[in-house]
Amino acid sequence: MNCIEKLTEIFRRFPGIGPRQARRFVHYLLTEGESARENLILTVAELKSSALQCSSCFRFFTKTGRDSRTCALCLDSTRAGSSLMVVAKDVDLESVEKSRTYDGHYFVLGNTISFTDKEPEKNVRMAELTARINKEVKQGKLKEIILAMSLNPEGEHTAEIIRKAISPLLQDANVKISTLGRGLSTGTELEYSDAETIKNALQNRKS
Amino acid sequence: MNCIEKLTEIFRRFPGIGPRQARRFVHYLLTEGESARENLILTVAELKSSALQCSSCFRFFTKTGRDSRTCALCLDSTRAGSSLMVVAKDVDLESVEKSRTYDGHYFVLGNTISFTDKEPEKNVRMAELTARINKEVKQGKLKEIILAMSLNPEGEHTAEIIRKAISPLLQDANVKISTLGRGLSTGTELEYSDAETIKNALQNRKS
Amino acid sequence: MNCIEKLTEIFRRFPGIGPRQARRFVHYLLTEGESARENLILTVAELKSSALQCSSCFRFFTKTGRDSRTCALCLDSTRAGSSLMVVAKDVDLESVEKSRTYDGHYFVLGNTISFTDKEPEKNVRMAELTARINKEVKQGKLKEIILAMSLNPEGEHTAEIIRKAISPLLQDANVKISTLGRGLSTGTELEYSDAETIKNALQNRKS
Amino acid sequence: MNCIEKLTEIFRRFPGIGPRQARRFVHYLLTEGESARENLILTVAELKSSALQCSSCFRFFTKTGRDSRTCALCLDSTRAGSSLMVVAKDVDLESVEKSRTYDGHYFVLGNTISFTDKEPEKNVRMAELTARINKEVKQGKLKEIILAMSLNPEGEHTAEIIRKAISPLLQDANVKISTLGRGLSTGTELEYSDAETIKNALQNRKS
Repeated sequence: MNCIEKLTEIFRRFPGIGPRQARRFVHYLLTEGESARENLILTVAELKSSALQCSSCFRFFTKTGRDSRTCALCLDSTRAGSSLMVVAKDVDLESVEKSRTYDGHYFVLGNTISFTDKEPEKNVRMAELTARINKEVKQGKLKEIILAMSLNPEGEHTAEIIRKAISPLLQDANVKISTLGRGLSTGTELEYSDAETIKNALQNRKS
Repeated sequence: MNCIEKLTEIFRRFPGIGPRQARRFVHYLLTEGESARENLILTVAELKSSALQCSSCFRFFTKTGRDSRTCALCLDSTRAGSSLMVVAKDVDLESVEKSRTYDGHYFVLGNTISFTDKEPEKNVRMAELTARINKEVKQGKLKEIILAMSLNPEGEHTAEIIRKAISPLLQDANVKISTLGRGLSTGTELEYSDAETIKNALQNRKS
Repeated sequence: MNCIEKLTEIFRRFPGIGPRQARRFVHYLLTEGESARENLILTVAELKSSALQCSSCFRFFTKTGRDSRTCALCLDSTRAGSSLMVVAKDVDLESVEKSRTYDGHYFVLGNTISFTDKEPEKNVRMAELTARINKEVKQGKLKEIILAMSLNPEGEHTAEIIRKAISPLLQDANVKISTLGRGLSTGTELEYSDAETIKNALQNRKS
Repeated sequence: MNCIEKLTEIFRRFPGIGPRQARRFVHYLLTEGESARENLILTVAELKSSALQCSSCFRFFTKTGRDSRTCALCLDSTRAGSSLMVVAKDVDLESVEKSRTYDGHYFVLGNTISFTDKEPEKNVRMAELTARINKEVKQGKLKEIILAMSLNPEGEHTAEIIRKAISPLLQDANVKISTLGRGLSTGTELEYSDAETIKNALQNRKS
């Protein structure tokens, strides 16, 4: 396999990329010329050396001047330490941050748990989550853990597994577990809504 | 214009139908033969003679034995008269009925109100709604009016106009106005959610 | 089943229409009012009484003043009687007419022949086609039969079956059978073309 | 801009990639770990050092043992030197090769020529093409130049410009210019075909 084919194979493994688009990527790099290829190499190399996983919330971040193992969100002392939002992935955390409606802490599981997953603790950071909760419970600041999963079968399954795993840790502590509210989301049309969404929208209706 | 072209024109005005599909409908009727055409004619004629608009909720229904002007939902004495759900269209009412989570009464506005609509009371049944609410307030059973509009700009605008129009009627009565709950709907993924949905999901979170 | 449900069922059988859109059609007819329903009934009734199938090419047409059993295309004496184009459906004939590049006669099979079709002569007008060809061969004007099928597996299968069926009728007559040319069609991009299309485009290349 | 953002920007410039997918690519590289990043860096570096543009047909290829400036297709003495196919891009050449229906030589223009292009000779390899044709005409082997462009407005415009540019070079030589055949391509349905395709399919019909 020559390097054109090898690079095509590498791009094929990128999320959502088929053989044809992978081939186009290689061709793009070939025609864009020297500096584009050099730029890609240097930036991936920089990623290699400066991208870190936060030791507290486990999201990826980039090292700045101070050589810290903790990300800016976790270091930010103006954020409320009373709530911890558990999300499946970095992109979920970024979505919540963009909404500018939450100022507590985060924990990134790294994955959702599928129904066929026999050992969920291997695919998500279960041990790290229980360790973190245990520590925070002892410190006494934590008041609420928000399980912020997507509203699809895998998201709900993940929330259920997490709830079972962390409930015992909270027994004597005054920490509640909550989940995101349900009802109509932006763009939802009544005509096309399923029974579950209508039920939630009715139960959670507001005066 | 011959009758093939005329019928194609008629089908083109059906919701969501372009010239090509309209032409296919005509061809379907031509090839399906005599009984299919006869069946369509008879059923539309039956619709003409037996479909009625309920004098109470204004949805369409079909006359059964008893020659009533009121639909089965409105006549059903087991349904709670304490709540009235205002919807834009018949299909919205049908969606809510299918969810089997509401057992109160309905009122169908007939339309949503667009932002450019100078005289909304001409496109929606505003006079009929206020008349109905006035009557119900006098009878003293009504406790809640649920504005059940889709969560899009026109739906929200409609709810706002309706709320302004009916609030004065409820001043001395103990009747509250509510809207459907907001948050994640079935299938919502955090990664792709807008700030508004995340804000609602967070504000309405549940223990 | 009331007439709203009955009409929904009828529309569901229309080509390409699901339950939701069928329901919308009924609602459209209910809200459009009396004259729209009346118009539909009258036009379908007119279709019933005045749409005819041409006794020569078997396409559907509408009776005009002269009470003819033959359509305008078949009656048009300026069209060349030397070529007969065999198409699967009325819409194919209409497509060719719109292109204004053919001035011969037509024959509509009524269907394509699927691979699982054990008795193709029941689904397409095979007997009528052979009768017509026999008659035309005797008259001595016919020079070419064009099998104008779509370039998909069923279209090619149909052309093959038809060719086998009509070849024996032409043995002593000087009538050739032809098929539509192959190569790049409007919009074809080389990058996304399959081997067959490229092969045809190369074989049929033009100086 | 940190390196996560920088890499996202780089991927956004990849063909067909939006900001969201670019972000996913970066996340994929972060989670796939060290070896995936290393592998990408090494292969792009290899591309930098070993991908060459053929001095004869101008497609990209990878250097093998022999340090040649000419690609394997151009060096292959079993391929017919009597025909030269002019294509817009590498991917077009690859499409034709996959069809295994052509065994002549190629020339890659590098681009198509758009209608607004005032100086087409700057965007496509016009000088290189005329040089190559002049050389081949002198050698006396060339019999045919195939302009193999996609059948869209830009493809046709490109073919026309190229034809005008190379015709003078062929005046005394016995070399013809041809274009790809037109008609139905795989999957073409008569019902949905435009007039141009039907015209070509009829003109190029085959016995």
